Amino acid sequence: MVVNFIPWVRERLKSGTYVGWLREEDGRVVAGGGMLLMDFPPHFLDSAAVRAYLLNFYVDPAFRGRGYARELLETAVGDARRRGIKVVSLHASKFGRPLYESSGFEATSEMRLWNDGVQPD
Amino acid sequence: MVVNFIPWVRERLKSGTYVGWLREEDGRVVAGGGMLLMDFPPHFLDSAAVRAYLLNFYVDPAFRGRGYARELLETAVGDARRRGIKVVSLHASKFGRPLYESSGFEATSEMRLWNDGVQPD
Repeated sequence: MVVNFIPWVRERLKSGTYVGWLREEDGRVVAGGGMLLMDFPPHFLDSAAVRAYLLNFYVDPAFRGRGYARELLETAVGDARRRGIKVVSLHASKFGRPLYESSGFEATSEMRLWNDGVQPD
Repeated sequence: MVVNFIPWVRERLKSGTYVGWLREEDGRVVAGGGMLLMDFPPHFLDSAAVRAYLLNFYVDPAFRGRGYARELLETAVGDARRRGIKVVSLHASKFGRPLYESSGFEATSEMRLWNDGVQPD
């Protein structure tokens, strides 16, 4: 995955369609998150045609419980808001769900098909 | 919405990131559906970096119950498969859900925030 991801993300960091945040602690990266700016059809509630998708949110296990995930989430949502983006989406892990719910995120009716029959968690 | 959508979709039909299908009956369009090809990070189960998002599926009420929705869905999923796209997603209405479930779609953990506080159905 890393082999595929690095050239992919490098190109999008340059073009500005991917934004990432890292938190450093004593010169070491201990948490991070990313946001992909996605082309999306204009909606009657959202004529912007750009949506933000949050991904790659991670906090080093040794640094959890310090509010770093919430801080990263607020940074990303604030950044999206300043860009005029109305819709921010993500796929929540079971552990992340309470944080997202308390930040105003709501479950959607999204459904997904894996064409090769593989369905991940 | 139409005013915003038409120039948006015209550009994407040209560039090839939007594909649409229409069903005609006696010279009249009675059903249709669309597929947006979205840039997405490579995943360990999907190195393709392109996902298909289905939208604008509609069957004229007078022509429902004839299998047109299923036919459009199979056309779109087949088209995605031929393009080598592994992941096909959509947002299901309550009425559409049984069709999507019987076609292999499963609910996801997607969550969404509307930055202006408006949350549609």
